[in-house]
Amino acid sequence: MNRSLEDARRTLEAQPFSKLLGADLVSYSPEEIELHVPLTDQLKQQHGFAHGGVVSYAADNALTFAAGAVLGPAIVTSEYKINYVRPAIGERLIARASVVYAGKTQAVCRCDLFAVSDGQEVLCAVAQGTIAVLRSSIS
Amino acid sequence: MNRSLEDARRTLEAQPFSKLLGADLVSYSPEEIELHVPLTDQLKQQHGFAHGGVVSYAADNALTFAAGAVLGPAIVTSEYKINYVRPAIGERLIARASVVYAGKTQAVCRCDLFAVSDGQEVLCAVAQGTIAVLRSSIS
Amino acid sequence: MNRSLEDARRTLEAQPFSKLLGADLVSYSPEEIELHVPLTDQLKQQHGFAHGGVVSYAADNALTFAAGAVLGPAIVTSEYKINYVRPAIGERLIARASVVYAGKTQAVCRCDLFAVSDGQEVLCAVAQGTIAVLRSSIS
Amino acid sequence: MNRSLEDARRTLEAQPFSKLLGADLVSYSPEEIELHVPLTDQLKQQHGFAHGGVVSYAADNALTFAAGAVLGPAIVTSEYKINYVRPAIGERLIARASVVYAGKTQAVCRCDLFAVSDGQEVLCAVAQGTIAVLRSSIS
Repeated sequence: MNRSLEDARRTLEAQPFSKLLGADLVSYSPEEIELHVPLTDQLKQQHGFAHGGVVSYAADNALTFAAGAVLGPAIVTSEYKINYVRPAIGERLIARASVVYAGKTQAVCRCDLFAVSDGQEVLCAVAQGTIAVLRSSIS
Repeated sequence: MNRSLEDARRTLEAQPFSKLLGADLVSYSPEEIELHVPLTDQLKQQHGFAHGGVVSYAADNALTFAAGAVLGPAIVTSEYKINYVRPAIGERLIARASVVYAGKTQAVCRCDLFAVSDGQEVLCAVAQGTIAVLRSSIS
Repeated sequence: MNRSLEDARRTLEAQPFSKLLGADLVSYSPEEIELHVPLTDQLKQQHGFAHGGVVSYAADNALTFAAGAVLGPAIVTSEYKINYVRPAIGERLIARASVVYAGKTQAVCRCDLFAVSDGQEVLCAVAQGTIAVLRSSIS
Repeated sequence: MNRSLEDARRTLEAQPFSKLLGADLVSYSPEEIELHVPLTDQLKQQHGFAHGGVVSYAADNALTFAAGAVLGPAIVTSEYKINYVRPAIGERLIARASVVYAGKTQAVCRCDLFAVSDGQEVLCAVAQGTIAVLRSSIS
């Protein structure tokens, strides 16, 4: 619990899919975590925007890392919901997630996702979900 | 509307992110569409399962192609929700999606996601979401 | 677990809010449960349709009773999502829910909601959610 | 658009179900709306907490009134998701909702729900959803 940014980054680096997408954690605390994904061409869909699957990946992972900052690393994403509100256009995707509620067995988190274009952040999606402590880890 | 599997595959191939993940459409009709993703090592997380972001990608894209088989290609995913129920372990991820309701401006779809291991399908996630017709396309 | 329809009805009758709405369970099994709500005038909104809150109530309760048929009565609704697809017009609302996945600590369920008008059922909403076993009840 | 609290209250009063539950709007602006529901005995479930259906009602209606403060009254709730995080115990339920994104055809809103006991607010649920402009109203 309350692991460091370095610990969290090691977990992220141990995820081959996160490496494939080039994701990085730039801040990590019980209050908020921030995950970045560079919007390279291979992460796009047919209209040149970031694919919804990329935005979903960032939401899912940011929600889970936010929970991890409070619950520790032995967790699993149970479920989440995402609303896309604008196309994700730009050079980077930023996901900021925070814990709304944390109990012994699960946390509920929210995430705001922004596309950064020419340094300007534009909200492109919002998410909300549940992260559960792995049952074997519940004392 | 009621486009062919070939048309739908062309759309999928025009999505760089879908190509990166190796996704393929194997069936496509107004009743059900089926999307496959081979679970290569680079799509995994730190425990060797498919990353949640991969399962989310498949859910998002399958929901949208299911809607497209009824609404036509000028659509956008509005929102969806996903429940992960088991780790996605195996050689392939299969997403089967169908339309629950279709109106003039949107469709609501459901998706079941299965991991295939040694030929056995195991349910690993379920999703539900809304796909909207692009406003400029509504007559 | 595998309680009878009579047991489930007793639980429903012990819910003052369900009595206020006139809800009834008409079938109850691990495969599917069915909850009815008569669409009296006091359950409507300003346009004469059933209020979304009534449809939500039915979805929430049906999802939970479906889980209860598998997990037993010591459960709590964790979360759900609902898509309204048509106005709920008619004399009765029917919610049919079933378990998609059940583990030791939770179940994921789906629910279809129909408005019945002149004996015709029309789909008006679909829901999906998680029901958790109360922690003190997990052996 | 930007209707007054009085207009919004008239809409609420025109909803028989909202009257049945005793709901009241206590503030109403494009920034945030606040809906109250007194937790009378008839709104409870078998354990003496507010029934999930009551919390859902409040979330659904608060999300919709929040959208209405920006989109005007010709709207309909498309979908939402709710996470229950604590039992709703106390004398009153407060739902505070705000608009995260508003376009021409829809708005995405969030809602926090609190149970008030002895004057203390405790977060009991969080919700997120989509409210659509009625198609006939889109110019």
